[in-house]
Amino acid sequence: MIPIVCIVGASDSGKTTFLEKLIPELTRRGYRVGALKHDVHGFEMDREGKDTWKLRQAGAQTVAISSPAMVAAIRKTKGELDPREVAGRLFWNEDILLTEGYKRSHFPKIEVFRAEVEPAPICGPKDNVVAMVTDDPVSTEVPVFPLSDVTGIAGLIESRFLKERRKRKIQVQLDGKQLPMNEFVRDIVCSGVIGMLSTLRGWEPAMDITIRIRPEEEG
Amino acid sequence: MIPIVCIVGASDSGKTTFLEKLIPELTRRGYRVGALKHDVHGFEMDREGKDTWKLRQAGAQTVAISSPAMVAAIRKTKGELDPREVAGRLFWNEDILLTEGYKRSHFPKIEVFRAEVEPAPICGPKDNVVAMVTDDPVSTEVPVFPLSDVTGIAGLIESRFLKERRKRKIQVQLDGKQLPMNEFVRDIVCSGVIGMLSTLRGWEPAMDITIRIRPEEEG
Repeated sequence: MIPIVCIVGASDSGKTTFLEKLIPELTRRGYRVGALKHDVHGFEMDREGKDTWKLRQAGAQTVAISSPAMVAAIRKTKGELDPREVAGRLFWNEDILLTEGYKRSHFPKIEVFRAEVEPAPICGPKDNVVAMVTDDPVSTEVPVFPLSDVTGIAGLIESRFLKERRKRKIQVQLDGKQLPMNEFVRDIVCSGVIGMLSTLRGWEPAMDITIRIRPEEEG
Repeated sequence: MIPIVCIVGASDSGKTTFLEKLIPELTRRGYRVGALKHDVHGFEMDREGKDTWKLRQAGAQTVAISSPAMVAAIRKTKGELDPREVAGRLFWNEDILLTEGYKRSHFPKIEVFRAEVEPAPICGPKDNVVAMVTDDPVSTEVPVFPLSDVTGIAGLIESRFLKERRKRKIQVQLDGKQLPMNEFVRDIVCSGVIGMLSTLRGWEPAMDITIRIRPEEEG
C-alpha cells in the first residue's frame, strides 16, 4: 500500500489550492502523485446522455472509457470505500496518495487553516496531524508552515513518508477478504512464496510481487 | 481475468443501444457486468474547474473521487492500455466485461450490423466473431440474431463465456511484469501456494486469491 496523507481543513480553507501547489512540487522531486477527493454528498462525473452514462444507467456495475491518453472508470459502491481500498485498487503505480478531505480517518493529516473561514483548527491533538499549514497564529505541538511554504511541506512528506519504503509486507486476500496473519506467519509466508518463485526461470528480484489465483475463464 | 466480449460494428450501427438492452438481461441472470467504451479520439469525463480537474491539471497521475454511492478515477496513460489490463485493473469483481468497440482486438466479438449505415459487416471470418446481430440478410458462418433478440445473445454469452469459470489460473507479477510459466510450473506454484495458505488459521477455500508482497511504507 502506498502512503496516504490527508490534506484536511474546514470547508473553503484552501485545501485544493494548497494541493495544486504541493502536487507539482512532489512531482518535480520525482514522485508519482495520486490524488483522492472525498465527496460526502455525491458527485456526478459523467454527463447525462453520453455513452458511458447510458451504460451505467443500463446497470453496468463499473463503466470505463479508454483512450490513448487516459482511462477513466466509474464504479457503483455499496457505501463508502475506505481510502485504503481505493488506494490499493485505483492507484497502481503511484508513490503516494494525497487526499483532499477524510478528516475523520486515522491517516496522517496536514491541516490547512485560515482564521478568516474558521475560528480554530478542526483537528485536535489526537487526530494524527503531522503539520499545520497556516499564516495565522495557532497553538499546536506539530510543525507549522506558512501557506506559501510548499517546499517545507514537501520536504516533510518526503522525509516522513517516502524514504522508508524498502521493508516488505505481504497481504493475502481470499475472494476479496483479507486473511489475518500475525507478523511471524506473514514473514514465513512471504519467505515461502519468494523462495518458491526464486527457483523459477524468469525470476528477477522484485519489490512488488502479485500472485493471483482465479477461476479460469473460457476463450 | 474475467471474460471480455467486444460489441463491435460500424459507427452508428447501434452498439450502445444494443448494450443498453444486453446489460440488464445479463444482470437479471445474476451476473455482474462491467462495460468499457473504446474511445479513439480522447474523451473528457471531468469538468473544467472542478476540484478533481484542478488536481489533474496540477500533475496528479491519477485522480479519484469517492462518495458513499460511487467511486471514480481518471488516470493519465502513456498510450492506449490493452483491454486486458483495463479489465484486470479496473474491474474488481465483475463476472464479465462487455466492450463497446475494439474491433481490431483478438477478443471474441459480436457485430451489430445495420445495412442502412454500412454496406457490409465490418468483421471478416478471421476476426473471432461469435455472433452477428442484425435484421438484414448477411452471409456468415456464425449464429445470427435479430436486433431485438437480447435473450438469444445473452444465452450465447452465458453458455460460451460464463459457465466454464471454475478452473484455476495463476499469474505472478514481479514489479508489474508477468513471470512466464508453463502449465506444469503454474500447477505446482498454484498448489504450493494454496497448500501453504491452507495451513493457516483463517483460511477458507476461495476461488480468487491475491497475494501481494510490497515495500512497506512508514506510518
